[in-house]
Amino acid sequence: LKKVTMAFFNILLEGVGVREFEWIQKAAALFGRKHEGVPVGIGDDCAVLDCAGSMLVSIDTVVDGVHLDRRLLAPEDVGWRALATALSDLAANGADVRRPISALISLQCPADFVEAELLRLATGVRECAEAHGCRVVGGDTVRTPGPMALTVAVIGSSDRPVLRRGARPGDLLAVTGPLGSAGVGLHALRRGLTDEHAQRCAAAYRRPAALLATGAVLSQRATAMIDISDGLLQDLGHLCAASEVGATVDLDRVPIDAAAREVAARLGLDAVEIAASFGDDYQLLACLHPSGLEPLQSLAPGLTVIGEMRAAPGVEAQRGGRPYEPQRRGYEHEW
Amino acid sequence: LKKVTMAFFNILLEGVGVREFEWIQKAAALFGRKHEGVPVGIGDDCAVLDCAGSMLVSIDTVVDGVHLDRRLLAPEDVGWRALATALSDLAANGADVRRPISALISLQCPADFVEAELLRLATGVRECAEAHGCRVVGGDTVRTPGPMALTVAVIGSSDRPVLRRGARPGDLLAVTGPLGSAGVGLHALRRGLTDEHAQRCAAAYRRPAALLATGAVLSQRATAMIDISDGLLQDLGHLCAASEVGATVDLDRVPIDAAAREVAARLGLDAVEIAASFGDDYQLLACLHPSGLEPLQSLAPGLTVIGEMRAAPGVEAQRGGRPYEPQRRGYEHEW
Repeated sequence: LKKVTMAFFNILLEGVGVREFEWIQKAAALFGRKHEGVPVGIGDDCAVLDCAGSMLVSIDTVVDGVHLDRRLLAPEDVGWRALATALSDLAANGADVRRPISALISLQCPADFVEAELLRLATGVRECAEAHGCRVVGGDTVRTPGPMALTVAVIGSSDRPVLRRGARPGDLLAVTGPLGSAGVGLHALRRGLTDEHAQRCAAAYRRPAALLATGAVLSQRATAMIDISDGLLQDLGHLCAASEVGATVDLDRVPIDAAAREVAARLGLDAVEIAASFGDDYQLLACLHPSGLEPLQSLAPGLTVIGEMRAAPGVEAQRGGRPYEPQRRGYEHEW
Repeated sequence: LKKVTMAFFNILLEGVGVREFEWIQKAAALFGRKHEGVPVGIGDDCAVLDCAGSMLVSIDTVVDGVHLDRRLLAPEDVGWRALATALSDLAANGADVRRPISALISLQCPADFVEAELLRLATGVRECAEAHGCRVVGGDTVRTPGPMALTVAVIGSSDRPVLRRGARPGDLLAVTGPLGSAGVGLHALRRGLTDEHAQRCAAAYRRPAALLATGAVLSQRATAMIDISDGLLQDLGHLCAASEVGATVDLDRVPIDAAAREVAARLGLDAVEIAASFGDDYQLLACLHPSGLEPLQSLAPGLTVIGEMRAAPGVEAQRGGRPYEPQRRGYEHEW
């Protein structure tokens, strides 16, 4: 059933031409067998992690044909993106970046998944792990008659986790950086655009960053936080519901990258609509008492106030001074 | 992409007739929102767990048509089995049962998965969690065009984790209880047998127990340990490889339940062969210095010595006083 459980990409790979123990050696070479704070990594039934205080844990699954399209993404990007989007949940709760951050990876390999693709995917996972200071400590790999799927569990810690709940009326609503680039980037990938602006947007989609350092800084002052994975207005709605407050947001204040504006215009798309409702940028949305803003601005330079929390429930968006309702509050991936 | 990440069974369920927030409420009612040692459970980006010392973490995926057959198992059994088999890895490393044990569940729902089935599966997860003193602290649910799949990440802790490595020549090799019941049970399910013996075996397959308490007791003395998920000889091979030793095992000493013997005989199957190579019973295999056996026998009553560790590498099985090679050392699930 689960074979050498903690050996990342380890089993039932006969169909893709990879032998179990051979792969364990390769995976251990790629990801390491032990690390600081990880006395036992890949190769046993469990990994062993040193810990103290409050642990943060989360799990996320992406399925080919639902959350991603292998025809548009290189295998390295698939691996990067699956890990980064999982790590983004740690950022959203303010995981401490001075303490170990670990990941477990479970891959479902379809019949058409050859060894070269597996290695490229694992390389993308490793690149993302290195870029984020994260250790891959184990995993599982199984065969599937269905589409490729990747589940990532992440583990971090914090002495003061910030949650979705905790926002208060009068708090400022701030976003950590530009929105819409990833959404425009996906459109650009689908259209096959290769110019510099399109590539910049596509990179935001293919290789999002989990804002761990920014999340850790914000966690010192934020009353509530969430990462924007599904769309600004939808994720803001989740935060409001958890905090039992409402919010007003001025879409004209939402930062949008100039390249994203340009490519969107070229494709006949509304960049503001995409910024409001697409998601996939993995910026953080933080609520702050007004006195908390100034001390953070030098530490989180992209931080931009886009609205305010209020007692009345619901999310009210404005654009050009008028109430605005996007076609969708959160993007539903349509493939 | 990941929506309300920590809300177990939360998203993209339009296709199965379950609405996101409605389901979060149901899941929170089923699994609870906080517990002792779990200040934040279902409902935020991450769950928050109190911890100290060494954490044990593991991840496991089961796919319908590869690791299980939904035609043979009730949805409750699918849920139970996925969690129990993941928890078995914590047992294998000697997780401390006095400290919190937690799980994250990620479910991929196929198009034919209706809400009633989802609730039944979740109920099986909850029953298993309660039986094992485990808290379900979060999860993710996604739609898939492929088969149902369930990934479970488990988190425990131990001051003295026992690993696969550590066995020494001269150590006794012991198993915690009977093998073969689950394998015979699967055959019985396939043949549609419903008599008492067959049901006893089928139950071993449908609802295995993770031997957490036994694993914790053994961890006080064992030099190395593994759970038997894939077959005695195959898992023993993993332990030997990690410990850089070999083993001799006398298959005549392997405990086999009388009901399993009877049903196997009736079906024309070799119960000893199944016990040696099928797996799925989730008994533990422990290596012990000879002086360590007696103190454990009252605490782990089913503990049975079946062989010995040796310096020469490889696993040598005997049966009826002669060298024995089963047709397969580890069962490869054939569906």
